[in-house]
Amino acid sequence: MSKDEFNHKYLAKEWFENLRDEICDSLEECERILVGGNDAAQKSFGSFERTEWRRTPELDDGGGGVMSVLRGRVFEKVGVNVSTVEGKFSDEMRSQIPGTEDDGSFWASGISVVAHPRSPFVPIAHMNTRMIVTAKQWFGGGGDLTPVFPDEEDTENFHSTFKKVCDKHDKGYFSEGYYPKFKKWCDNYFYLPHRNEARGVGGIFFDYLDTGDWAADFSFVQDVGKGFLTIYPEIVKRHMNKDWSSEEVTAQLAKRARYVEFNLIHDRGTKFGLMTGGNTEAILMSLPPMAAWP
Amino acid sequence: MSKDEFNHKYLAKEWFENLRDEICDSLEECERILVGGNDAAQKSFGSFERTEWRRTPELDDGGGGVMSVLRGRVFEKVGVNVSTVEGKFSDEMRSQIPGTEDDGSFWASGISVVAHPRSPFVPIAHMNTRMIVTAKQWFGGGGDLTPVFPDEEDTENFHSTFKKVCDKHDKGYFSEGYYPKFKKWCDNYFYLPHRNEARGVGGIFFDYLDTGDWAADFSFVQDVGKGFLTIYPEIVKRHMNKDWSSEEVTAQLAKRARYVEFNLIHDRGTKFGLMTGGNTEAILMSLPPMAAWP
Repeated sequence: MSKDEFNHKYLAKEWFENLRDEICDSLEECERILVGGNDAAQKSFGSFERTEWRRTPELDDGGGGVMSVLRGRVFEKVGVNVSTVEGKFSDEMRSQIPGTEDDGSFWASGISVVAHPRSPFVPIAHMNTRMIVTAKQWFGGGGDLTPVFPDEEDTENFHSTFKKVCDKHDKGYFSEGYYPKFKKWCDNYFYLPHRNEARGVGGIFFDYLDTGDWAADFSFVQDVGKGFLTIYPEIVKRHMNKDWSSEEVTAQLAKRARYVEFNLIHDRGTKFGLMTGGNTEAILMSLPPMAAWP
Repeated sequence: MSKDEFNHKYLAKEWFENLRDEICDSLEECERILVGGNDAAQKSFGSFERTEWRRTPELDDGGGGVMSVLRGRVFEKVGVNVSTVEGKFSDEMRSQIPGTEDDGSFWASGISVVAHPRSPFVPIAHMNTRMIVTAKQWFGGGGDLTPVFPDEEDTENFHSTFKKVCDKHDKGYFSEGYYPKFKKWCDNYFYLPHRNEARGVGGIFFDYLDTGDWAADFSFVQDVGKGFLTIYPEIVKRHMNKDWSSEEVTAQLAKRARYVEFNLIHDRGTKFGLMTGGNTEAILMSLPPMAAWP
């Protein structure tokens, strides 16, 4: 491993862990300042609990991660996972992963956030960024919003936050431009063909990002995380104190069922995780606390 | 199509539809005679509602099916689906289906039952039998039980019912014997590797059954259906009047979540259905009315 590669891995891992701390703080702040939302404000506020896991506990090797889970009054369940793992891909996986033709070795580090709010008016949100190293190295990630009741201002703010991040870092590497490319990628990815429905109102999604300038790519990935950290709590605070009805909860449980369908049938990250011996609890942290197929 | 093939298809389809009627009657009887089960007996009893669907409505071709759904007081949701469809497999599917090497044509008819009881003491049950025709023809199916709180007598009765059916029809076609082979197949099939857990307490599962004696195979398949029709309502009645606690509902919602995970991640029937343009509502009828990933 070159000194550069060593440094890059170290910097990425540190950043993902740092971002995790900031996101947890920011979501805990939402918990503390709640004043409405039916009887939710009567409950005590939640805080994150951390659980460490190792990929191969018997070997104390292969890396691992930390799940941070909050079960609270604004967020019925929110998971913020970081993990840094390394190992060898199975032959089946190698055919699907760039840079594994000669050697199945990989290293991967990332952060993944999925928030399931209690209120049907606060959108479900997902953000993930990751750095992968095989014989190649690249970044991937994105963020997307899944409201039960889409709100134009939320959708506009969420997209414009990521558009600004994309535009700032777009040096013409993709002819389409970062934002148009990553927005379309998100729309295509978070889609349920069997329902002929989008999972939510989109956002951005990117993978295999390697412009040749690691520092520039890393800086973009950092800004994606920061963008999420700015806009999602703002949207949460905008709606969390509203009251809701049982009909709105019924709609929420149905939307969450679609979320389950997407994650278990289609999501590559879920499949990738379950097939590479990831931590099942951490991977399925994305599933909602309750869902209904009435 | 030979006269035999025509008759076989007709007889199988008629049987599946007949069995559907009998199962619906029997489950409706459970609904009517309920006297306990917390406040469930205060609710009015449920009856099946039928919805027809066509595979390609625009062409009025390719067949279709009928969903029968009951949402009641013993059964929070139970679906009994019959369908008879025909068409051509995509190239991707052809590599996986016997008898499609030269021609992707298929015909398939079957019945599928999934019952999600309200009481945590009444096991979830599944039964499916089907006849498939490509250049080859065969039967498949089985039945399995998923209790939240396994009960030895239920498990023993459920297995011995299917053992009797298997033993009656076992003419030595498989060296292992029908029951041992189909029981093991069931245990292997209804297994969640990512949880290292069985879905339930098993039953039987078989596929590609073609001994060369169509009438014998059909008779076996009929007895599998009749076996389920005898034993499941008996198990339901044994437990349905018991009261339960909210802790027991919590355990039920967690067990149902595992059911969702199995059906969406692993079940071949679900994948097959969604990939061959089956009716999404009918296919996902197997999912529980409510599930929790707390």
